[in-house]
Amino acid sequence: MSNSTNSPELDSLTATMKSEWGRLFETSPFFREFEAGHISKDLYALWLIETYHYTRHNSRNQALVGVRNPGDDPQYQRFCFQHAADEAGHEQMALHDLRALGYEIDKQNITRPLPETQTLIAYLYWISTTGIPSQRLGYSFWAENCYEFILPPMAKMTESLSLTSAQTTFFVAHSEIDVEHSQQVQAMLLRQCNSEEDWQAVREVMITSLRLTGQMLDAVYSLYQRTSSPANLASAA
Amino acid sequence: MSNSTNSPELDSLTATMKSEWGRLFETSPFFREFEAGHISKDLYALWLIETYHYTRHNSRNQALVGVRNPGDDPQYQRFCFQHAADEAGHEQMALHDLRALGYEIDKQNITRPLPETQTLIAYLYWISTTGIPSQRLGYSFWAENCYEFILPPMAKMTESLSLTSAQTTFFVAHSEIDVEHSQQVQAMLLRQCNSEEDWQAVREVMITSLRLTGQMLDAVYSLYQRTSSPANLASAA
Amino acid sequence: MSNSTNSPELDSLTATMKSEWGRLFETSPFFREFEAGHISKDLYALWLIETYHYTRHNSRNQALVGVRNPGDDPQYQRFCFQHAADEAGHEQMALHDLRALGYEIDKQNITRPLPETQTLIAYLYWISTTGIPSQRLGYSFWAENCYEFILPPMAKMTESLSLTSAQTTFFVAHSEIDVEHSQQVQAMLLRQCNSEEDWQAVREVMITSLRLTGQMLDAVYSLYQRTSSPANLASAA
Amino acid sequence: MSNSTNSPELDSLTATMKSEWGRLFETSPFFREFEAGHISKDLYALWLIETYHYTRHNSRNQALVGVRNPGDDPQYQRFCFQHAADEAGHEQMALHDLRALGYEIDKQNITRPLPETQTLIAYLYWISTTGIPSQRLGYSFWAENCYEFILPPMAKMTESLSLTSAQTTFFVAHSEIDVEHSQQVQAMLLRQCNSEEDWQAVREVMITSLRLTGQMLDAVYSLYQRTSSPANLASAA
Repeated sequence: MSNSTNSPELDSLTATMKSEWGRLFETSPFFREFEAGHISKDLYALWLIETYHYTRHNSRNQALVGVRNPGDDPQYQRFCFQHAADEAGHEQMALHDLRALGYEIDKQNITRPLPETQTLIAYLYWISTTGIPSQRLGYSFWAENCYEFILPPMAKMTESLSLTSAQTTFFVAHSEIDVEHSQQVQAMLLRQCNSEEDWQAVREVMITSLRLTGQMLDAVYSLYQRTSSPANLASAA
Repeated sequence: MSNSTNSPELDSLTATMKSEWGRLFETSPFFREFEAGHISKDLYALWLIETYHYTRHNSRNQALVGVRNPGDDPQYQRFCFQHAADEAGHEQMALHDLRALGYEIDKQNITRPLPETQTLIAYLYWISTTGIPSQRLGYSFWAENCYEFILPPMAKMTESLSLTSAQTTFFVAHSEIDVEHSQQVQAMLLRQCNSEEDWQAVREVMITSLRLTGQMLDAVYSLYQRTSSPANLASAA
Repeated sequence: MSNSTNSPELDSLTATMKSEWGRLFETSPFFREFEAGHISKDLYALWLIETYHYTRHNSRNQALVGVRNPGDDPQYQRFCFQHAADEAGHEQMALHDLRALGYEIDKQNITRPLPETQTLIAYLYWISTTGIPSQRLGYSFWAENCYEFILPPMAKMTESLSLTSAQTTFFVAHSEIDVEHSQQVQAMLLRQCNSEEDWQAVREVMITSLRLTGQMLDAVYSLYQRTSSPANLASAA
Repeated sequence: MSNSTNSPELDSLTATMKSEWGRLFETSPFFREFEAGHISKDLYALWLIETYHYTRHNSRNQALVGVRNPGDDPQYQRFCFQHAADEAGHEQMALHDLRALGYEIDKQNITRPLPETQTLIAYLYWISTTGIPSQRLGYSFWAENCYEFILPPMAKMTESLSLTSAQTTFFVAHSEIDVEHSQQVQAMLLRQCNSEEDWQAVREVMITSLRLTGQMLDAVYSLYQRTSSPANLASAA
């Protein structure tokens, strides 16, 4: 996907995305550990917990873009509802992976989302309900293409922790779904963005949501350093 | 669909639905004209205008049920988003039919929805955003099964007005989609309703939304009697 | 209030309001009983129950108009929030009156709102969240001036049922608050309505919300005829 | 206000607030400049622009807490609507101050909020619409008490820029309103918080919203370093 296309705007968006990922791997404590192959099982579990939390809202805020659909564009509305349907319930995979790792966590006893996770969730609802309709595509653009950046460190993690495929369903499933989604997101961006302002608004959401994701993961890492394990969360709270 | 099933609750819902339709055909001025084959082209056009208005909101309020999804039930959430996707943009068919009939109406110059249409729309949003999740199925239950009741008078109308299939895309398309949807709605009702209170809440929405639809159509008929034609709406407003 | 003002638009709104009230007293089964002095204690109680339900939402939907405030008009926004504050918790008075009448009803065991009450509530939220900002004033316009029309029959009821002032706090308190509110609503209408379309939009809400209130009260009367008393509601449900 | 009270929970909240402010003045580039008396007129103007943006939403999200009011607590609901009324339109003061400084800025030509400002706004809506009702008080708690911390550096700024009172209406007006509000916020916290979890939820919002405010101001400072002046914003965008 990140190869060049016929659209200078998409290419420019891709270039910014790559540079933001580069910045993350350089400056984020979490991503530095991730790249170095230093993710422990407990840290992976804490990551999955926050993944569960924000993923619960992704199909919801995606659908809300279709609910607004101020221009009554049936094709974009269908895209929003269809993607929302495709991603409904994916948070269950994060819970499944946690349990496959041996953590007795379900939606009743899971810890509340970290403030940084809530901030990411809040921002995505805000953009979905008040931004121009194309803006949420800025989130989809990087989220559906993140595998290029996270699969190599994830392979290290899988190997060092000897993870089975039953313990990584969330990330594996998404890397598969997202190949097709990624094409659709690009096509929809070309359809929806009709001015430099439109592209700029999308770029802003891409950058901001990726940075907030980085802040969330750094908060996960910081929590890990303070508590070591999901099992200790209650006492550390 | 209205044949008996293995579920006494579905059968009872069906019986109530039939009795409500019977009541409509007996007491509603619009439905009496409809059954008698007395729908003129102008009255059909006024009907399509209000159909456009409420249909614009149906995929939206259907999606909102999935956005809430308080129990995090992935299967019901997917059902909501999928149905919303299936019905996205259907209001365009109502506009298409209007133009195929010769009325120069588009979304810029269409008249505002009647108060009775707004009331129906408002009620469906209210139920979708505050009711128990299964309640909106009470609307789907009758809406996806209405063809048994409206196809016979519609056949009379089609014949008396010599309507072509290009002038009836809205109702024809829905009667086709809705065969499959109707099965899914029944299956989902059986999955979602776990108590007599649940079934009663669904029944209440079925009755209320059908009655509000009847009031909307009676308001269409009353407008028709005052104005004769969409062309006269401006002067009559 | 219903005397003539210096504004032809306000005077015309008042004339329409009077004519709608006249229509209600002529055609509504509830209002005919009310005017005839035939409201029993049980019927008054059923009325208070629905009053509790819609009143819970009035300060809320009033505040939502201020939350939207698309034109960033500070004066109108302050009016909305101030009126919402003035009416917050008034539903408690309806509960209080019920208990003062001897009914053991609180918010835990109160029956659910009738479909007609839900429809009124739904319509007021719809107008408050999607109408032009001034439209909800169409509801306030008649609601804050209804005492001219309902105090005479209410006096008959008070006398025939020997009601004490502790049993009529809801209606008495409102008739007092609303003298001042009514002036403010008129001033705000003159400030907000700048075209014939604006006045027409307000008039539509005035008529529709008054009619929906009439339908709610007729549903109360119909429920009364079927059940006689709040005490029988459970068995009649 | 930050003196000790009879409530250990309020005292603990105050202690955390002070420590967060200490952290801000130590680590935030903006607050270090602010404390050192190095705020230029252009930087003050950029600050006022973002102040305009988030302030537009404060009375709105405050009112939304009253709209939800899940426990139907009339006293808290009235508090929310009353505070919303008190703060309605305060964003106009920020615009006024900008113009009094000589910047030709109004709501038509003002630059869009920075991503960090949007994130703060988004977070406050999220907490107001999905948190426990008392949580937004965590924002009010520090916001209505911030003058202890910002008045000393503000005095330096006022002196070094020779600002008149007509150029600082926003901050002066708030420091006055907030004396009374601050007492009410404390009383309401004592009324609403009934468990350690409640106080913890409030503390989390206090810390998070103060940090997001710090990030917003650091983004203002960073924008200032890139552009020097609001007049250059268009070319730098």
